[in-house]
Amino acid sequence: MNKDRKISDPVIKRLPRYYRFLGELAEKNVQRISSRELSDKMGLTASQIRQDLNCFGGFGQQGYGYSVQVLRDEIGHILGIDNCYKAVLFGAGNLGKAIAVHLSFEKIGFRLIGIFDNDTNKVGTKINDLTVMSEDELENFCQRNQPDAAIFCVPKSSASELLEKLYVLGIKNYWNFSHYDLAFEHDDVIVENVHLNDSLMVLCYKISNKNLHKEN
Amino acid sequence: MNKDRKISDPVIKRLPRYYRFLGELAEKNVQRISSRELSDKMGLTASQIRQDLNCFGGFGQQGYGYSVQVLRDEIGHILGIDNCYKAVLFGAGNLGKAIAVHLSFEKIGFRLIGIFDNDTNKVGTKINDLTVMSEDELENFCQRNQPDAAIFCVPKSSASELLEKLYVLGIKNYWNFSHYDLAFEHDDVIVENVHLNDSLMVLCYKISNKNLHKEN
Repeated sequence: MNKDRKISDPVIKRLPRYYRFLGELAEKNVQRISSRELSDKMGLTASQIRQDLNCFGGFGQQGYGYSVQVLRDEIGHILGIDNCYKAVLFGAGNLGKAIAVHLSFEKIGFRLIGIFDNDTNKVGTKINDLTVMSEDELENFCQRNQPDAAIFCVPKSSASELLEKLYVLGIKNYWNFSHYDLAFEHDDVIVENVHLNDSLMVLCYKISNKNLHKEN
Repeated sequence: MNKDRKISDPVIKRLPRYYRFLGELAEKNVQRISSRELSDKMGLTASQIRQDLNCFGGFGQQGYGYSVQVLRDEIGHILGIDNCYKAVLFGAGNLGKAIAVHLSFEKIGFRLIGIFDNDTNKVGTKINDLTVMSEDELENFCQRNQPDAAIFCVPKSSASELLEKLYVLGIKNYWNFSHYDLAFEHDDVIVENVHLNDSLMVLCYKISNKNLHKEN
């Protein structure tokens, strides 16, 4: 694979899906899969899948399909999930807790090393094996642990200030659940936004248009 | 707008962002905006924005820009957020609670009318003004209330069984947080998946490639 090659966003967004589906196949001891079988399973065309995988050099053999394990390992490597980036989470409310408890960070490239909240009722409580810290401890913590990424589970009103604090401390990669768009403040940050409202509005659009088409 | 016109997924996915940005402008009492200003704010090109809005008939006047309020209302109408679809939520754990508490359903096309969980410790507890119900009550509840959509905040292991139950009860629109892909079981369902793992893997990819490019 040519590491310098610019891969389009839609392809990047599909990589985790490939990784997930191939993981499920591996669990079922499936050894090989054709692009056609993969396409049926994923709701993409076989030609789309071949094109996607060709972006990374292609791993299939004509007529033999893909080795599930090789392809999965390779996609995992492309995604960088063997990196184990150190992440800190901000906001120990319901959403923050859900993220901290339910996500298998280690399996997807990260290790959750700290949780911060400014609510004194939450500071000192435990989530998994982590004790929630006050943001007063953030600077020291960063100096000692050099986190790579921050997870924003804070309200929109706190997001901008937190961003500035983290930026100065050298944390420039963000997974953002706040309703605040972090992306346009600085050029050298990486942001992956999860806008739950937007997703629900897309569902609303789809329902509305299903009904319209039924009525017509 | 021609309601029968097929709008591409990327345009649909951008509509909530327009809606959100225009809402922020309206809050600041901004009356009109040009496609160029909107593009700076949203990180899209002005021509992209004009193309997007032309999909819906176009609302701008050459040289005058768009009326923020008119455009926002129109996009809201296209999204169908004046519909107030009745939604029920499954899974009253941290994630389910976060969704129920933090999302302003009414502002984005839905009303949360019921929360279900099979954990007897959770049944009977209150989230906002809703009392968590047992799934034993689901059939009666559906007959009385005719929900339009279901929110899956359940583990992967429960998702398939829940889907079948809901499908039989006539609920065919799903907002899915389980790690299970609901989409490919039935042809006549609408699914909007939120795969948090996938999103975090995309961040991982972006961080990995930023570092690679720095090193090169």
